[in-house]
Amino acid sequence: MRYLERLDKIQAVLRRKKLDALLVSQPHNTRYLRCYAAVDHGIAERSGVLLIPTKGQPLLLTDFRFKLQAEVAPPLLPVVLYPKGLLALLNDLLPDLKIRSLGFESDYTLFSVAGKLKTLADKIGIQLFPTTGLVEKLRLIKDEEEIEKLRTAVALNEQVFSRIYNSLEAGRTERDIALDIEMTMQRLGAEAPSFDSIVASGPNSALPHAVPGSVMIERGQPLMIDMGLILDGYCSDMTRTFVLGEPDDRYLSIHRLVRRAQLAALAAIRAGVTAASVDKVARDIITDAGYGPAFGHSLGHGVGLAVHEEPRLSARNTRKLQAEMVVTVEPGIYIPGWGGVRLENMVVVRADGCELLNKNSTWLDL
Amino acid sequence: MRYLERLDKIQAVLRRKKLDALLVSQPHNTRYLRCYAAVDHGIAERSGVLLIPTKGQPLLLTDFRFKLQAEVAPPLLPVVLYPKGLLALLNDLLPDLKIRSLGFESDYTLFSVAGKLKTLADKIGIQLFPTTGLVEKLRLIKDEEEIEKLRTAVALNEQVFSRIYNSLEAGRTERDIALDIEMTMQRLGAEAPSFDSIVASGPNSALPHAVPGSVMIERGQPLMIDMGLILDGYCSDMTRTFVLGEPDDRYLSIHRLVRRAQLAALAAIRAGVTAASVDKVARDIITDAGYGPAFGHSLGHGVGLAVHEEPRLSARNTRKLQAEMVVTVEPGIYIPGWGGVRLENMVVVRADGCELLNKNSTWLDL
Repeated sequence: MRYLERLDKIQAVLRRKKLDALLVSQPHNTRYLRCYAAVDHGIAERSGVLLIPTKGQPLLLTDFRFKLQAEVAPPLLPVVLYPKGLLALLNDLLPDLKIRSLGFESDYTLFSVAGKLKTLADKIGIQLFPTTGLVEKLRLIKDEEEIEKLRTAVALNEQVFSRIYNSLEAGRTERDIALDIEMTMQRLGAEAPSFDSIVASGPNSALPHAVPGSVMIERGQPLMIDMGLILDGYCSDMTRTFVLGEPDDRYLSIHRLVRRAQLAALAAIRAGVTAASVDKVARDIITDAGYGPAFGHSLGHGVGLAVHEEPRLSARNTRKLQAEMVVTVEPGIYIPGWGGVRLENMVVVRADGCELLNKNSTWLDL
Repeated sequence: MRYLERLDKIQAVLRRKKLDALLVSQPHNTRYLRCYAAVDHGIAERSGVLLIPTKGQPLLLTDFRFKLQAEVAPPLLPVVLYPKGLLALLNDLLPDLKIRSLGFESDYTLFSVAGKLKTLADKIGIQLFPTTGLVEKLRLIKDEEEIEKLRTAVALNEQVFSRIYNSLEAGRTERDIALDIEMTMQRLGAEAPSFDSIVASGPNSALPHAVPGSVMIERGQPLMIDMGLILDGYCSDMTRTFVLGEPDDRYLSIHRLVRRAQLAALAAIRAGVTAASVDKVARDIITDAGYGPAFGHSLGHGVGLAVHEEPRLSARNTRKLQAEMVVTVEPGIYIPGWGGVRLENMVVVRADGCELLNKNSTWLDL
């Protein structure tokens, strides 16, 4: 049972860190450790947290509204409600469980909440330790079950894209297409989009994170679609840029350059190379062609339960890639007033290369 | 120009607090002060922050991906990019601007980020102060332009609900109805849902925050729909519970009890009464009828740019309501195995009572 293996691993980490327990509040981390995925309203209003002791069973701490959902999430674990808030519960619970040193996730705990936690810890005589990335570090390397889920998410993404592509016609608005994407995703079984879909037409495609608007798509203009979905908890993320009708020479040369940079980066990925070196392979090709400043973002990022996670494929990340990491490869060129081209695939890093999760390159090789 | 008025107000607050500047990172706060609303991927990946000095123009600090969006958001203000990250930019910018004391939003700054900010502040010799709710306090009281936006959002919500209601039939799944709601919202002009719509049928309606699933709705069963949308930045939030076909006596008696509690609370709301006293009015009615433990959440919450904001109408909130606050009134009774009834309206607190923003009570008075 994979949840129990993950629990073993995180408990081993806690013992090494000499912590009696860890409070896990980051939603992907709670889902990773306990398959608990009740929706919450952001960091200030969590639907529950996990208290992981060094030994024995974790507890799921939540409030009345999520009681029934919490109770049915596998693996079945004790649920403790906090009718008067999490801090009031911890005030009683930590001494009961003889927890004397408690870690909390400093990357998903508000400064104000940490302050209240510290006041409580001082009051009941426990030591509080900020931690960073303990669960995230486990999440970096995907097991084959996770990779299969990512593969399935990418396959569904391509299926959705294909339907949308076949429905495109001049005169539809970016917004209408974006809605159609999100609706189609969900009708075909996705839990949700993994981010707000980007549909950017003509000059709007020069905005890497454009918001779809009332602009009507036109023949002969670049059209950039960046979309992702969540299936069984795992995210896809894919960008295609193309032209309805005949692309002109300028579009073709920029598209081919971006594609060449992408293929070169894909060829460079394998376990043991640094993230920065992969970014450089793509960036050098774009820079040598004179478009360096027009490629203003990193080459890619990790994907898993979160659509953006480690490792970042950026010029500043000198960490080595490891087998079974999953990353996007998405070079882009953005020219204000004209438009942009970004092409994004997802790959699994393997010992001797990488496994491309995308199976359809119809829209890539122009 | 309302943005300039708001800027004046927050700058006056900063002067009183003897701060040279405030770093505003909370997305609703940046939208309130500057109409900047680029989408971001949560607190760990903001699309930009505002640096508000005590005097003069604020700066919008963002990265390459959001440059063009940032430049066109009214009011037009200087945009500064951080190609090497926010901290590297602040390292240069704060001394240049002669900022010696900087506030940050402790309720929207991660503990780990605050730590890095502190290290930077020590290095460049500035004092760092955690602040709480400075902009949120301004947002508590809505101006008439904001109230009009909320009124319009509620009207659109009712319009969407009415279409959905008329399309309901036994055999449709919760999930399909939820998708239909979100699609209809957006087709009719909403920016987005203000939260994931809840469509909970039969026993699922006993989960206050149920996730719509593959359950098919049935005649004679409670059906709870809690939905909200964002229109021009402002949120609606509305719950209706009803029965397709003929409700049985048990349903009718619980529904009427919840409605009676809601009407009593609405009658109790006016400027000057405490939030807790309004919660108590509804809770007493439900408790007296023997359902106290089945009403496990607070009576309501503030709504504005955020769908959940202050003031909370909870038994623990002893603050007095003020004129032009906007709150939900949403008593509920949840019975595991049977189902639940929640009825939610939005109101503006006025000096002598409250203004109901919902205009249609067709589904409330059974």
